[in-house]
Amino acid sequence: MFVIGFYQTQFGELWEKSLSDLIQEAIDGVLKSNELDKQQIEAVFFANMLAGVLENNLHLPSKIAEILKSNIPVFRVEAACASGGVAIYLALRYLEANAAKTVLVLGAEKMTDYSPEEVTSALAAAASGEEQEAGITFPGLYALLANFYLEKYQYNQENLAYIPFKNHYHASFNPKAHFRKKLTIESILNSPYVAYPLKVLDSSPISDGAAALILTSDQSLIKKVKYKAKILSCEMANDSISLTQRKKLDEILSTKIAGKKAFLKAKINPLAINVAEVHDCFSIAEILAMEDLGFWKKGEGGKRAKELSTMLGCHGNLIVNPSGGLKAAGHPVGATGVKQVGEIFLQLTHQAGQRQVNCAQFGLAHNVGGSGGTAVVTILAG
Amino acid sequence: MFVIGFYQTQFGELWEKSLSDLIQEAIDGVLKSNELDKQQIEAVFFANMLAGVLENNLHLPSKIAEILKSNIPVFRVEAACASGGVAIYLALRYLEANAAKTVLVLGAEKMTDYSPEEVTSALAAAASGEEQEAGITFPGLYALLANFYLEKYQYNQENLAYIPFKNHYHASFNPKAHFRKKLTIESILNSPYVAYPLKVLDSSPISDGAAALILTSDQSLIKKVKYKAKILSCEMANDSISLTQRKKLDEILSTKIAGKKAFLKAKINPLAINVAEVHDCFSIAEILAMEDLGFWKKGEGGKRAKELSTMLGCHGNLIVNPSGGLKAAGHPVGATGVKQVGEIFLQLTHQAGQRQVNCAQFGLAHNVGGSGGTAVVTILAG
Repeated sequence: MFVIGFYQTQFGELWEKSLSDLIQEAIDGVLKSNELDKQQIEAVFFANMLAGVLENNLHLPSKIAEILKSNIPVFRVEAACASGGVAIYLALRYLEANAAKTVLVLGAEKMTDYSPEEVTSALAAAASGEEQEAGITFPGLYALLANFYLEKYQYNQENLAYIPFKNHYHASFNPKAHFRKKLTIESILNSPYVAYPLKVLDSSPISDGAAALILTSDQSLIKKVKYKAKILSCEMANDSISLTQRKKLDEILSTKIAGKKAFLKAKINPLAINVAEVHDCFSIAEILAMEDLGFWKKGEGGKRAKELSTMLGCHGNLIVNPSGGLKAAGHPVGATGVKQVGEIFLQLTHQAGQRQVNCAQFGLAHNVGGSGGTAVVTILAG
Repeated sequence: MFVIGFYQTQFGELWEKSLSDLIQEAIDGVLKSNELDKQQIEAVFFANMLAGVLENNLHLPSKIAEILKSNIPVFRVEAACASGGVAIYLALRYLEANAAKTVLVLGAEKMTDYSPEEVTSALAAAASGEEQEAGITFPGLYALLANFYLEKYQYNQENLAYIPFKNHYHASFNPKAHFRKKLTIESILNSPYVAYPLKVLDSSPISDGAAALILTSDQSLIKKVKYKAKILSCEMANDSISLTQRKKLDEILSTKIAGKKAFLKAKINPLAINVAEVHDCFSIAEILAMEDLGFWKKGEGGKRAKELSTMLGCHGNLIVNPSGGLKAAGHPVGATGVKQVGEIFLQLTHQAGQRQVNCAQFGLAHNVGGSGGTAVVTILAG
């Protein structure tokens, strides 16, 4: 299975564009990106979380069929902020079943037409009923995880701040990023709290955007195209939705399970990965992910974050979130998991421009839903 | 691929039960139905349309992981009223990819806690934006199809009335049906209009309910279990969402394409089918489906409906909607496609009690999303 095409729209506040506009742009863009023909697409997997809740817009498969002017199967997948990763996972199983040779994976989300209160409430739909009723939003849930981690391993808010510092630096080289402004550690630490100990600048933004990938098992197509990256594995796991039902609060079990399975299937170990996009919805999330994926030892993340070894230009063996991550590149939730694999594709095919990671050979994308109720890990080779 | 288990909750106004309660009952029920063990389930496909819109409840895969106390992959699929059928379709491709040997397909919907206005508006999310903005609801869209059909082929409202007459008669034998009351043709014709020429008694109700199937490719399990039915094919097609974008209004193109592919793959023709569950959200929908699936010739449906040859006890070769269909058995949208295949499973394994179709050997289930933007056709053998 190969990725042979990727396109993402600008991520950001795109008030002049509707969800359909973003979908149309992503479809046109991905076909052009590698000179592919619409007729080669045999099925579509579409990731979207919020169109139903925010704009009473469901049954999107049929809407996409109308855009494509085609009768091929189109599937909508929803798994909160992991919708994109799960769409890729299902698309790969579909290719393995020989139900199609070439499929389009789309992710799109339109979030900024609504007030932050409306969007925060809609996003809370990814938490448990009890958590919603208690009034805990996602910043609140991740703040609970952050408090537990900082206290258990004796770190402070400064350790967290190095994550957005790095990711904003990376996004300054990404023209499609929502925010391209570099931040100082001081400005991050001085930004207002959203939910103690997490601040505005520890938190990914509300963004609009779409992303599209072409996946194929068609050998003749793979031979023909200029840009391609091999998918070595894509694995997923679910876990209980409520934090109260988890045995440990300093790890995301779904990430650990999905990561372990993905490395096993890919037959490589974490040391082989040169570039990764991990799910940094909040600063603490990237630290937990780095540990749970086996890049860092449990409890060392706070220290390692401060070393900045995963920052471009810092001569580490692994660069993390070169796109700017969710934090700075933006987080249109349905598009995120698709864009993550797309960024790895760009890196492995040396199309990442100013943010290109040198000698990138193996890459990993990690996509999380909710506070870890779903996780998907995809490993690619250049 | 075999169906080796089915369970459905009562369909109806279940005010005392939450969506989670219905899901839990369906999981427990399907495992018990064929003495299966939870540990045998390796993935779950979950169909639901409205929980996001109506109760701000998304990320249901993780909620189901919590109910199952398991980390296996769980997928949520949404394709309006075809969500159940699409979940089955994807589950089969998942089994074909050898990603699992045994999977659970769940469908559930909780609709009656909300006002009819709220539910009608939420259901309209399955139509195009233009149709929603014009204020056309689903009864309105199907009324447009009905008007066109009745005028083109010179039928009247009485021809439509024989569909709910038959389906209510069937539901009188189904203890899980929403409505078990037999209707007279007169009472149907005298019921109030919802959208001319469709009346209340031409229209499927708003229901709560859940349904679950176990699908397997595990030969040892297939040998061991008492009840099983073979899935010969399951095919789907999408079409443009807006009626204005369709070339013909007296057919549902997605049904035609999916049906043709399903018969081709199953290597049988429509004459072989003894029992079918077809998507009768409105009376006109069953007539169009019977024609588009190749059971009746185009334009003959009005006459054939009146002959009642597809009614239990009428000595036809094909009995349609023995469960009572969506009209009388109820239409909890996410559960419908799952229940349809479940009813065929019950018929083919001779577990359908008083509504058992004699000598049922081949069965078909037909599930539609919106006004035909999605259609799934599944063919089974006993």
